[in-house]
Parts: sequence; C-alpha cells; structure tokens
Amino acid sequence: RFKPNKPNMTRSAVSIEKETPETERPITFLRESEGADVRARFEKMIREAQDSVCAAIEAVDKGGKFKEDVWSRPGGGGGISRVLQDGAVWEKAGVNVSVVYGVMPPEAYRAAKAAPADQKPGPVPFFAAGISSVLHPKNPFAPTLHFNYRYFETDAPQDVPGAPRQWWFGGGTDLTPAYIFDEDVKHFHSAQKKACDKFDPTFYPRFKKWCDDYFYIKVRVCFSFAGSLQLPPIPPSPYTKGGKNLTVCMHKRERGELTVCATGSAEATHRGERRGLGGIFFDDLNDYDQEMLLSFATECANSVVPAYIPIIEKRKDTPFTDHHKAWQQLRRGRYVEFNLVYDRGTTFGLKTGGRIESILVSLPLSARWEYDHKPEEGSEEWKLLDACINPKEWI
Amino acid sequence: RFKPNKPNMTRSAVSIEKETPETERPITFLRESEGADVRARFEKMIREAQDSVCAAIEAVDKGGKFKEDVWSRPGGGGGISRVLQDGAVWEKAGVNVSVVYGVMPPEAYRAAKAAPADQKPGPVPFFAAGISSVLHPKNPFAPTLHFNYRYFETDAPQDVPGAPRQWWFGGGTDLTPAYIFDEDVKHFHSAQKKACDKFDPTFYPRFKKWCDDYFYIKVRVCFSFAGSLQLPPIPPSPYTKGGKNLTVCMHKRERGELTVCATGSAEATHRGERRGLGGIFFDDLNDYDQEMLLSFATECANSVVPAYIPIIEKRKDTPFTDHHKAWQQLRRGRYVEFNLVYDRGTTFGLKTGGRIESILVSLPLSARWEYDHKPEEGSEEWKLLDACINPKEWI
Repeated sequence: RFKPNKPNMTRSAVSIEKETPETERPITFLRESEGADVRARFEKMIREAQDSVCAAIEAVDKGGKFKEDVWSRPGGGGGISRVLQDGAVWEKAGVNVSVVYGVMPPEAYRAAKAAPADQKPGPVPFFAAGISSVLHPKNPFAPTLHFNYRYFETDAPQDVPGAPRQWWFGGGTDLTPAYIFDEDVKHFHSAQKKACDKFDPTFYPRFKKWCDDYFYIKVRVCFSFAGSLQLPPIPPSPYTKGGKNLTVCMHKRERGELTVCATGSAEATHRGERRGLGGIFFDDLNDYDQEMLLSFATECANSVVPAYIPIIEKRKDTPFTDHHKAWQQLRRGRYVEFNLVYDRGTTFGLKTGGRIESILVSLPLSARWEYDHKPEEGSEEWKLLDACINPKEWI
Repeated sequence: RFKPNKPNMTRSAVSIEKETPETERPITFLRESEGADVRARFEKMIREAQDSVCAAIEAVDKGGKFKEDVWSRPGGGGGISRVLQDGAVWEKAGVNVSVVYGVMPPEAYRAAKAAPADQKPGPVPFFAAGISSVLHPKNPFAPTLHFNYRYFETDAPQDVPGAPRQWWFGGGTDLTPAYIFDEDVKHFHSAQKKACDKFDPTFYPRFKKWCDDYFYIKVRVCFSFAGSLQLPPIPPSPYTKGGKNLTVCMHKRERGELTVCATGSAEATHRGERRGLGGIFFDDLNDYDQEMLLSFATECANSVVPAYIPIIEKRKDTPFTDHHKAWQQLRRGRYVEFNLVYDRGTTFGLKTGGRIESILVSLPLSARWEYDHKPEEGSEEWKLLDACINPKEWI
C-alpha cells in the first residue's frame, strides 16, 4: 500500500473526515432506526439499483468485472464504490452509493445563516444518501450515460431543538453521445418520460428543461482586486441579477488582499453548449408527498437499465475509424471540462465525505484537447455540437 | 467557419465581451499614451518574451510551427495566442499574451465594496496585461513547464475621481515532470534563484515557498443547504480560520434555496500533492519600487529559455516504454484536474476577456484517469509522487 510520508499535516477545523476502508459491505450504513424510515428505504433502493445496474453492465460487457471498494466514515455512514475499467464494451464504468450523515461545522452554517457574530450555533445535523454513476463505453457510437439520485435531510442546529427538519430529493439521468442516432435519443427520452408520466404529466417537460438548463457550460466573469478591502456584507442583488445561478466567490489572499470572483449562467455562454443531449434533472424537490417522491426516485433509478442498455447493445460493435475515435476523445475532453469546472455542486454536494477516487471516477479513462477545434459544417460531428448548443424536443 | 445557430441568446449584464479576430498584430494594444509608461513597457516586455520563447521552441522542435491568433476586445485591448500542436518535441505548446482594460461591472464592485444597497458606484477602470504559457513535451522524461507574468492596475470607481490607483505584479515559473532527474530540477531552480538574487536575496526562498503553497491541490469541504435562507453578512472567521486561502462560495438556486460551498487549503489535503516540483510564484506584489518590480518580472520572463530549454535538449530523445508513457498520461490527468478545478483564479483573473480557447490551451493534448492508481513503493513513479507531496529544497 502506498503511504507517503506526510510531515506537518494536521487535521484542521475545515478538513474533511477521512474515509476508512472496510472489508465487507454492511447490511446498512445507518446506525439508528429512529426516524430512519425514509432513510432506510432510500438506502435499500440505491443499493438495489447499484446491484442491478452493475449486473446489467457485466452481462453486456462479458469481459470486465466491477472492482468494489467499501468505506466508512467515523462520523457516520459510508459507501460502496464500484468501478469496471478497461472492459470489453466499457472503457470506464463507475457506480457508487454513499450514505453519509453527521454534523456540518458551525462556521459554514454561520456563514449561511447570518447569525450575529457573538452567537454561535452548534453543529447542524445532516443526512445525505445517493447513487451516482457515469458509464463511458469504448465504441464512439455508444453514448456515455450519467445518472444520480439522492436524498437529503438537515435538522436545526443542535442548540435549537424543535426547529423544523428539512428534506429534499434530487437527481437525474442524461445521455452524452459523440454521434447522434435519432432513434437512440428518442428511445432514451421516451424511457425518461415514461418514468415521469407515472407520477405527474408536468414532470417530464419540467425536468427535461431543467436538465437542458443545468448541463450547460456557463458563462463566467472573473475579477481580481487588490488592496486591503474589508470583508463585506454581500448585497443580495448580484445573486439574482443578470441571470440564474450567479455565484460570487470571495477569495482572501496574502496580506489583506481580496480577490472577488463572480460566475453566472446568465443568458449567454462561452461555449454555448450543453454537455450532451439531456434527459431529466431535478433538485431540491420537496413540494410533493415524501412517499410519492421516494417512489418517483425509485422509478427513475429502475429506468436506467431499460433506457440505456438497449442502445449499447445496438452500438457496441459498430465499426469505426480513427476519425470517429478522435472526435469521441475531444468530446470526452469537454466532458472533463464540464465535470471539473462546473459540476462541483452535484459531485461534492452528494459526497460530503469527499472520497476523491469515487468523485473522479466520473472522468473518462482518456480525453483530448485540441486548440480551437471546429468540425466541418454539416458533418456528423457538427450535428452533435449543434444539438448540444440548441437543445431539441426528442419526443 | 463554424457558426451554429444560437436562438434565444441575448447579452446580459454579466456576460463577457466577445473577442474579435484580427488579421494583423497591432504595434500596441494600448490606445492612450497618457499614464501608460509602465503599461507600455510591460506590454513590450511580454511581447518580446513571447517572441523569444516561441523562437526557442521552434528551434528545438524543428518540425512544429506556432499557429497565431490575434484578437481584440471592443472595450479595450486584445491578445496574441500562439499554439504549436503535435510537433516533433512538444505535444502542445501555448504561449499567449493579453493586454486588456476597460471597466469592471459595478455589480461585482458592489459585491466587494459593501456599498449600501441604495448607492450605486460607477464602473471600475482596470488594466491587466500578462504572458501565460504551458509547454507539454511528448517524451515522458521531458518535463512540462508553466510560466505566467502579469501586471494589473485598478482605479477608483468613475464617480469617485481622485481616489488612489492601485497596481501590482504577479507571476511565476514552475516545472512539472513525470519523472525526476535531480540535475534537471537543480538546474531549473538555480535559474530561478539566479533571477531572484539579482533583486533581493529574500525573493527566491520566499517565492519558492509561495509556489509550493500555491500549486497545492487543496482540501475542499462542501455543504448543501436548502430553505429560504437570508443572504448573510459573512463573518470574517471562515476566511482566516482553519487555513489559508479559505473560500466561501454562496450559490443561489431555484426557489429561494441556497447552497453554501466552503473551500480552503487548510493543513490537510485530499491528494496532499503539489502539481509538480515548483519553482517561483508571487502575487499582489506592490511593496517595492515599481521600476524594480518591472525589471524583476522582465528578468524572470527572460530566464524561461535558459531554465527550461537545456532540460528539453537533454531529454527529448530519451528512449521510453509504454509504461513511462502511461504514467505521463496519468500525471497529465492530474495536471488537468489542478488547472480546471483549482487554478481558475490565475487563468481567469489574467484573461478578463475570457477567450476560452486561449485559457484551455494550458491543457495537454491528451490525458488519462485510472481509478485509484497507486505506483509501487520505491519506484521512479513513487519518487515523483513523494516529491509532489513533500516539497524539497533543490539547491
């Protein structure tokens, strides 16, 4: 085992808990049964989904087998990471579940809650469980799939008992091909719609659009200031003006200087592209019955195999050239770009424990960046790019 | 030319100015001579450095030639991007200069300056010029080099004439090999020390350490809240407690919910690694004579060729195996990770104009990610990783 020497490394208030490897999968990562009904059922659902997706992938791949890592967190919970690497059909396939809970440091909570400086709320209990997967096939005509379903709870700070608990669901499934086959994309979107329609006819159009909006490589604007600026109260306007999802980062640097960085999706973009051809996405969903949303998340997770595997069966052996492979590698570069630059909210939000090897399993085995690459107008590569720029209605 | 159809794309308050391609390099990107002495001399210096570095690279590469793109910004300034791709010695070599100026949107300034909500300061004039380069050779024994030197000015908001102008210099040069040759790293650091020592004996040790601290893949902690939280005054403690460079991002999402994301380098790290074997780095440098710092930045930029090219001459034809190449590709994956996840301050700070193809030229032509890869203890790969985890004194 590789254990480099780490002098001068001490744990700090903001450091994350290290995960501990485990030799066996526990029956549950939960410790308490009290109030754990939805938690336990959600854990059971995501673990069953992990089993069935992995079994379906191994059955199609024939060559590759998933490697499993089980880990726990001293503060509560753990996870099961499964990776199939360099298989016959998939270059890299990761299917992870995690169930983590504990308390969030009060510094973070204070930063958000605007408590007076002399008032120190205690740690905030939280619970986060999810399944997260990215599947990168080898054949450039076989699409990459991402899906992720998660359930969160937060409680009031420990010194404010009785304040309301909050819960919400999030997730989605989306398809990222390097080449478009209309029938594949229609099949995929139809499966999403079918899952949605069982619950609410407004779900598919709403979550399809949310996915198109979310998987969008966003405009960013960055400024750098120097001088001994005071750390400010942030006026609300920059968060809401000029676009959705506007983020302001304040970065304190050496000797009193401050860098301010503002990012927002606004209406325009650098790349003007989505990551792929979409699917469904939702977040912070809590304005429906909790049972209904648990069933909905379950239905979505169970739709992954019928939505995706038939496409792979059809495309896994399609003959291809170096030209097709090179374009797939460039699209993989774009995938890396999106995931590392823009998707941190999802990946790190889910993985409060932050097991980095699990997070980065979403990256492809290999990727490529060429300066200023532009596909020829009207080519198949151009059509894919056009569909990423101008999302379509597929069904 | 690829011009996909972009319906529904409108410019917003936070969108960045689009660059305009130019057919010729202008003699200067500056418009006014008034007060432009340091600006003009810095531009001249970085453009000469770009010419000499590109000439040295083409002379060694023999096969490859730089492709040049000249661009301008309607608001002021422009840049020259040069990329050599798939050469005989370098896989990808980018050397960019940019000289941009104009005004920062008042929203960003207000976010930093804590102005009362009813008081609207005007746009803030700024000037930013820099040279930025990443050079990725093909041979796995030949190291990647990054350097970047930049000069900034900001002025008071336009409605507060007479308030003091601020200026500062930043930059650095650092080496990222996949394999360590002690003599190469010593030669490289000696060249940095030599440049530093001409100005101040404290510079090399200080900027060497700053580089080790900066090129550090940082710990990150992320929390996700829901609920209609108020946007808060941020208490100063999270910025300074638990580590340097602590960043708190607040991310407003749908329907009043707020995600809070805190990041800091603290004392511990995920990876516990630096990007490479360091060099020098400084930022926000303004507490010396401006002439002296201009000369120092010039000396540093002029040291790039003697510090780097002899190493490439020595290693460019070293025989290697698939094993060596695979390790180089994994280290390139780590390089991508660092640049996309952690180095945005530098890349986007310099490029206020945000020409994305110029920014992403720092990425290698190809890279690789394997799940949980660990080199064998005591191997050459392990030695490199150890030196990235435990920075050494090389001279």
